[in-house]
Amino acid sequence: MNAEIIAVGTELLLGDILNTNAQYLSQKLAELGFTVHFQSVVGDNPQRLEQLATQAKQRSDIVIYSGGLGPTADDLTKETVAKVYGDPLQFDQQQFERIRGFFHACSRNMPENNRKQAMVPAFGETLDNANGTAPGALFRDGEKIAILLPGPPKEMIPMFEQQAIPRLQKLQKAVLVSRVLRVYGVGESALEDMVGHLLEGENPTAALYAKPAEVIIRITAKAATSQQAEEMCGKTAQQFYDILGDCIYAEADQTLQQTVVQVLAEKGLKVSTAESCTGGLLSQRITAVPGSSQVFECGVCSYANTIKEKLLGVPADVLEQYGAVSPQTAIAMARGSKALSGADIAVGITGIAGPDGGTPEKPVGLVYISVANGETIWVYKLLLAHRNRETVRFAASQKALDMVRRVALGLEMKDCQCFEM
Amino acid sequence: MNAEIIAVGTELLLGDILNTNAQYLSQKLAELGFTVHFQSVVGDNPQRLEQLATQAKQRSDIVIYSGGLGPTADDLTKETVAKVYGDPLQFDQQQFERIRGFFHACSRNMPENNRKQAMVPAFGETLDNANGTAPGALFRDGEKIAILLPGPPKEMIPMFEQQAIPRLQKLQKAVLVSRVLRVYGVGESALEDMVGHLLEGENPTAALYAKPAEVIIRITAKAATSQQAEEMCGKTAQQFYDILGDCIYAEADQTLQQTVVQVLAEKGLKVSTAESCTGGLLSQRITAVPGSSQVFECGVCSYANTIKEKLLGVPADVLEQYGAVSPQTAIAMARGSKALSGADIAVGITGIAGPDGGTPEKPVGLVYISVANGETIWVYKLLLAHRNRETVRFAASQKALDMVRRVALGLEMKDCQCFEM
Repeated sequence: MNAEIIAVGTELLLGDILNTNAQYLSQKLAELGFTVHFQSVVGDNPQRLEQLATQAKQRSDIVIYSGGLGPTADDLTKETVAKVYGDPLQFDQQQFERIRGFFHACSRNMPENNRKQAMVPAFGETLDNANGTAPGALFRDGEKIAILLPGPPKEMIPMFEQQAIPRLQKLQKAVLVSRVLRVYGVGESALEDMVGHLLEGENPTAALYAKPAEVIIRITAKAATSQQAEEMCGKTAQQFYDILGDCIYAEADQTLQQTVVQVLAEKGLKVSTAESCTGGLLSQRITAVPGSSQVFECGVCSYANTIKEKLLGVPADVLEQYGAVSPQTAIAMARGSKALSGADIAVGITGIAGPDGGTPEKPVGLVYISVANGETIWVYKLLLAHRNRETVRFAASQKALDMVRRVALGLEMKDCQCFEM
Repeated sequence: MNAEIIAVGTELLLGDILNTNAQYLSQKLAELGFTVHFQSVVGDNPQRLEQLATQAKQRSDIVIYSGGLGPTADDLTKETVAKVYGDPLQFDQQQFERIRGFFHACSRNMPENNRKQAMVPAFGETLDNANGTAPGALFRDGEKIAILLPGPPKEMIPMFEQQAIPRLQKLQKAVLVSRVLRVYGVGESALEDMVGHLLEGENPTAALYAKPAEVIIRITAKAATSQQAEEMCGKTAQQFYDILGDCIYAEADQTLQQTVVQVLAEKGLKVSTAESCTGGLLSQRITAVPGSSQVFECGVCSYANTIKEKLLGVPADVLEQYGAVSPQTAIAMARGSKALSGADIAVGITGIAGPDGGTPEKPVGLVYISVANGETIWVYKLLLAHRNRETVRFAASQKALDMVRRVALGLEMKDCQCFEM
């Protein structure tokens, strides 16, 4: 069955608020096995709302509305949708008492205009609101269904979960299960070349989504039971693993920094960092993970050369001969960080994040990343042309995280130069 | 003139990503004086996209699209909208070279499917993309205009600002001018009490928007000329300055970290940091600003107590007697950072970001922030109950930035304890 989502509210059209309801409802509808074809936002304008509601009813089995159930004169979602589904509204004494009680509990008198919130579908259903005055509504015209929810997420989410989901589940025969694989180290285009043949299935489906400095693969299967759907996802996931191997660093919502903290904790290893162009972004990302204090020892952010020498012991002649942005300096920084902290794995990052400071030999976007363990030291040359400072820094921190993961797990260090400690 | 916004992408309909583009474009179109009647999201489906594009062209003067300009087979926005506006696409050698150059600069070969990105409107206009491979496009059919932007905000926003805004401004008769004041140190509710009477005007309008750990005030005036509108904004802005004084730290898009880097550069001062619970977030935010190498000396991220002692010289008895999270340790960290770096201003931050590690005496959300200059050392106790790790860390870094700004400018240090160096 297909569905669409309509948010009603001029404040959304002005950009005053972000439409998080649409994302929430889309995720939930996908999980429930509905295919969402449209999301729309329309203002508090009865003509445009009626036009959209009429069109949505024609093209979609289920339409979920949020917003426009308030007490003011321009809250017209219920009145307009009732008309489109041919269901008159009638006064409901019980809802009226509940709304009045809501004000009473706050020691306030109910304003007269809240009375309109007690108007409910004559033939449809009323959805109780445990967290506000506006009840929700369900309208039905033949097989076509509209569900009306309040706009504030604090009211909308509990009403959807407690009252809409059970009704929606009854409409579905099949179960949908999704699985997300997270890939680092292969760009979207290259990935499409490698796994393109796996993206053509109809059930399970598989699709790629480019994210900052990584790509995610979403596999979705439809079956009679969740166990069957999970098995189908599993088989497809295995095909991706066969091709991409350890480039799949985690699944679901687990970020690269969470993966690194988890791997280090499992192995009982500690990490330390020495950052120049990333300026603390790497240590910030690692320490953003709860529990990272177990695996993170210390970070030094050495912008000035004197600090590279003084704190990290980068030899003055290395800086002079090869420059601050060089594989030699990155290596010396990782060595220095390791000596300083006594950590098992140490990282050194030096580069030119831009927008200024580039030369023909050392352009903006050139970063050297070095990772050392007790025996070996690796260095990688990252070169990102035409990217802004933020992108260069993030990509460098992402590469560093992946190198730490690979060193901790003893995986292949592709395209790295390698030296003895 | 009215406008509507269409985002194209199945990942939006699945709820994988939040449609922040719609909010951004709505705000900008409102500032430019366009009335937005609809926001829509449609998947990578050419029939539904064509249906929506046709309808949008009928009902709106301007349609802004984002997404679906990528290299893959299901990226079809440009092809579909070209058809609706009756403008054939043609191959553009210059764009092709630019795209190939983009890959070349990253030492990669251009995949064959990127070639379709070099197809541009025959009669409309091509919008250059400085931050990615996909060029944008403008299609025109009589008075009706469609502007196509890439989906990733990092590409979409610069293209909109640099290339769409000048074209949209030409279409407008009345001029709208906005001015944004950025406030740190007064919460939204308190601010409403202080400046509520200034929020009721019709022209200029003024409104408050709560952002993470700050509030912005947007003043918008409509007039025949931009000079008149600017004067009107200026008078209202002055009223806010009279009440809020140095709590307004900057205007427009200038962030607190940009303000700090600018102030330090103007005063010829350097800063260094010692961070515990923020784990490098402060140094990362400062060094995210281009040119920060002039004012940033070094950062130490001392998670372990041994590093606090060894690198920053925090006395063992201070750590033992008062604990790692104490005003005494924050002060010793700032002192240590100053001694290590020789910077003019040094910061020390220590606290409990959570979710674990809190006690009744020292709960999650307690952070001490210390800032030292040559003569004086200040310490501030931040206490944020019921907030998550990310919020606590960000708020602490924000407070530290404001303290550095105030020390550099010699402003009042409200609610701080103060000691001699």
